[in-house]
Amino acid sequence: MSLDRLIDKIKETNNPTVVGLDPKLDYIPEFIKEKAFAEYGETLKGAAEAIFEYNKGIIDAICEVVPAIKPQAAYYEMYGFEGVETLYKTIRYAQDKGMFVMTDGKRNDIGATMEAYSTAHLGEVVVGSKTIAPFGADALTVNGYLGTDGIAPLLDVCKKFDKGIFVLVKTSNKSSGELQDLKIGDKTVYEVMGDMCEKWGEELPGKYGYSGVGAVVGATYPEQLEEMRAKLPHTFFLVPGYGAQGGGAAGVAKAFDKNGIGAIVNSSRAVMCAYKNGNYDEKDYAKAAYDEVIRMREDINSAIK
Amino acid sequence: MSLDRLIDKIKETNNPTVVGLDPKLDYIPEFIKEKAFAEYGETLKGAAEAIFEYNKGIIDAICEVVPAIKPQAAYYEMYGFEGVETLYKTIRYAQDKGMFVMTDGKRNDIGATMEAYSTAHLGEVVVGSKTIAPFGADALTVNGYLGTDGIAPLLDVCKKFDKGIFVLVKTSNKSSGELQDLKIGDKTVYEVMGDMCEKWGEELPGKYGYSGVGAVVGATYPEQLEEMRAKLPHTFFLVPGYGAQGGGAAGVAKAFDKNGIGAIVNSSRAVMCAYKNGNYDEKDYAKAAYDEVIRMREDINSAIK
Repeated sequence: MSLDRLIDKIKETNNPTVVGLDPKLDYIPEFIKEKAFAEYGETLKGAAEAIFEYNKGIIDAICEVVPAIKPQAAYYEMYGFEGVETLYKTIRYAQDKGMFVMTDGKRNDIGATMEAYSTAHLGEVVVGSKTIAPFGADALTVNGYLGTDGIAPLLDVCKKFDKGIFVLVKTSNKSSGELQDLKIGDKTVYEVMGDMCEKWGEELPGKYGYSGVGAVVGATYPEQLEEMRAKLPHTFFLVPGYGAQGGGAAGVAKAFDKNGIGAIVNSSRAVMCAYKNGNYDEKDYAKAAYDEVIRMREDINSAIK
Repeated sequence: MSLDRLIDKIKETNNPTVVGLDPKLDYIPEFIKEKAFAEYGETLKGAAEAIFEYNKGIIDAICEVVPAIKPQAAYYEMYGFEGVETLYKTIRYAQDKGMFVMTDGKRNDIGATMEAYSTAHLGEVVVGSKTIAPFGADALTVNGYLGTDGIAPLLDVCKKFDKGIFVLVKTSNKSSGELQDLKIGDKTVYEVMGDMCEKWGEELPGKYGYSGVGAVVGATYPEQLEEMRAKLPHTFFLVPGYGAQGGGAAGVAKAFDKNGIGAIVNSSRAVMCAYKNGNYDEKDYAKAAYDEVIRMREDINSAIK
């Protein structure tokens, strides 16, 4: 009901990072695409199969040294329902290898609909006399613009199935400040959202002091990371924006508490496309990803210490 | 590149309403479920087939008198990738019957990822030498919490494929005010978001004065509807919350301009479950939906005039 399972995995692997699996076809080595297209044609099914093949290679390579993956729903939806099937298969594959899976979907809606999203991504649905987990991820990113009744159904599902959520607080993109940095009285919009995370999290306490309601705070805004770390002592951070988006290790180190926990840092493109840096054959894409993951772990761990 | 195609359909049918297709299994008549489960078992596939069968019945019954449907992505994701296949098939089926389809997904993310969502739901993806529309809806609901660079990719896709978006401004749920009603200087958060819609819409002008960037403003807050109608002259409104959520015709009438256009009102449960009101056999669920749709049209049209 908290994010303890994630924090346990981070401690076990001594690695506070998560690999974002955002598989555009452009990121996928030619030999994988050729094989899939030969079998399924240049179709959404072909694309979806290529992506799954690629994902399996990455997961096999990193599952012992990285605690979690974060598949971004958009990149699967981009290949239609066939792509969404690959999202499902990727979640299962990674979990079978012992990884924690955070679906990055930034879902949001009114209560009744949020119940459906909670069921879809974290819970179980009833079909006749059967109960089935439609996607069964371990955590889901969500957007809190609709307030408490858009979040409450998630808390119920997290309690029942030992899952967690991450609420957008301060995002990593350039224009995040257009709304998020505006002042409501003496607080910014993102601080108001952060306070809500602390409040929502009270229902899902964890053994490390962090609740099941995490926050997304971008690596590209290190000052806000530091400020939010101090102000939100029970809120675990998912930190995107390291690497390709420009966030550095010194900056992301501010997301961690004095015990060296409290956050997990995401990298997507730099890991997925590591094989394109000139030192690898495309057949060694998984080895390249592994090397980048180890480099990232050392980079961040040394900045935390 | 605007919402003109939708407004044309509204004029053609003289009906400013949209039917939300949010198909929980509970809403679906037993005879449809029994048939689907007999063929596919009590599986996600069975559920997905039952929903598609049900949706087709509703669409067949209403396609001549209602301009649009609004499938809510959550209720399809709740039945896994098989459910998402039904979303795809429902979009295509309704479009083949001449309806405008608004996917209610409230998607949001940073620019690169929003490009993927735009491609997924409104645009076309490249697979090898082929170009394919993964879902191909006519409009998509989105959440603007991330600011301009989370919206810009949508504008490009809307321009290219003549599609539209609806941005959450003031949502219909009880807790919508927790963030949306807070004051930034002398404006509320939802007013700030509304202003952004006007700005984003400048890129997608339409022949009726309304741009391709609409706003979601709930029927449950008629005062805000009236206020926003006056302040956002180029922003077309999608108005949820009529019927089951408590919004009445007099309230939603405030979403329309002096020419009787400017908004489309959604009803989901009241239409989908119309057959449960005691006057119908479940086999007549589509007839019941038709009757409710006509009742709703008259109710709203008479309040506008």
